Amino acid sequence: MGISKNQLKLITSLSQKKYRQKHKLFIAEGIKVVNELLNSTFKVEALFCVDDFSCTISDDKVVRISENDLKKISSLKNPNKVLGLFQIPEENKLRNNELIIALDDINDPGNLGTIIRLCDWFGVSELICSTKTVDCYNQKVVQASMGSLTRIAIHYLDLAAYLSKTELPTFIADMDGENVYKAKLPKDGILIMGNEANGISNEIKTLVKNKISIPRFGETHETESLNVATATAVLLSEFKRG
Amino acid sequence: MGISKNQLKLITSLSQKKYRQKHKLFIAEGIKVVNELLNSTFKVEALFCVDDFSCTISDDKVVRISENDLKKISSLKNPNKVLGLFQIPEENKLRNNELIIALDDINDPGNLGTIIRLCDWFGVSELICSTKTVDCYNQKVVQASMGSLTRIAIHYLDLAAYLSKTELPTFIADMDGENVYKAKLPKDGILIMGNEANGISNEIKTLVKNKISIPRFGETHETESLNVATATAVLLSEFKRG
Repeated sequence: MGISKNQLKLITSLSQKKYRQKHKLFIAEGIKVVNELLNSTFKVEALFCVDDFSCTISDDKVVRISENDLKKISSLKNPNKVLGLFQIPEENKLRNNELIIALDDINDPGNLGTIIRLCDWFGVSELICSTKTVDCYNQKVVQASMGSLTRIAIHYLDLAAYLSKTELPTFIADMDGENVYKAKLPKDGILIMGNEANGISNEIKTLVKNKISIPRFGETHETESLNVATATAVLLSEFKRG
Repeated sequence: MGISKNQLKLITSLSQKKYRQKHKLFIAEGIKVVNELLNSTFKVEALFCVDDFSCTISDDKVVRISENDLKKISSLKNPNKVLGLFQIPEENKLRNNELIIALDDINDPGNLGTIIRLCDWFGVSELICSTKTVDCYNQKVVQASMGSLTRIAIHYLDLAAYLSKTELPTFIADMDGENVYKAKLPKDGILIMGNEANGISNEIKTLVKNKISIPRFGETHETESLNVATATAVLLSEFKRG
């Protein structure tokens, strides 16, 4: 059948957030990620796949295409059999009774995708993103999250307004904070991670009481820091290990 | 002055490992990474920089170029003032008396760069890479390591041969391993992390006694896994927190 001009136009437009929001659609690629989405509550709009990709969804949603056409529409270096269009689900209501991760303007799609996977692994089901945080339906986030996107409720909201009202204990990762290995960490609470370049914004800092830090074990170098995704990994591990 | 044709040819060639090894040179970009290298024991061969980049190295190694020329030679989306050529140092002798990280065929440059930063933070000064692991002087590794490359001794060697001789206790990260939060971890030892897609190779598995795992806290999903860099972060934290 091949791809129609309109389909091609739609797929290309979805690399931009405004068109994702307009069409309420996003792109996922590759066998693993697409199958995770097909096996979730997410709804598929269309699948563009090569002949030997097998799936059980209704034929009217499947468009068989050549390897060459797949290369044209793919944003991956090595396209992997299938590109799917999925519907962006409605946001669920935020639950406020467990460990929650909140992101203060994370920019890098790879970092957000990795943090979504970390939430999935460590049983964190609610992820809050400040409105300026990169869109979780950005294609690079979808690919980096490896399907974990389907299992985490992600909420975009005004982080300062939210934190000024919450009754949960709040924690920021901060160089000057208490050694996390010695801190008493609660079961429920909000762990806030900051922007890659600027850390936690001043507005958020004034709203949060607890500062924790991962101590350096190497010699001190002023320029040294941990990547936000690896810092999240260590801190989540500390909250959860008990 | 601008860039000569020969310089342009050299810079372009250094994106390939064989030319890096032939010329014993690698590329670093951006103010932060270049300054970290200039302030280290690494030796600079040449700096290509725009007018307002200030440095104190001898003039004969500095080539002032236009923003446009920098764009041409840069592999960054947003070139940042300077591209430097540095000499690849001789490998130091491997010290065998502390915690060592060993990588079994890590492919992704971003992962290797992140792991180098983690080693720096957690005071691991020796990093062993199997010969098939991505080259640490690959430009993406250099950028992702953010200068930590200057503080970690990295050794490429036949990992199986090395492990069959070592007297240090050896650990692999493995799904079926002992819960790392309950394991007794030594101060000195070798922690081996596996390839992104295939994990630890069978040959290495037969050489290693201790298996440790990071338990899942979320519901179990077969397809779920942690990224190798975030898993390294959690395990390093466990070895070091005491």
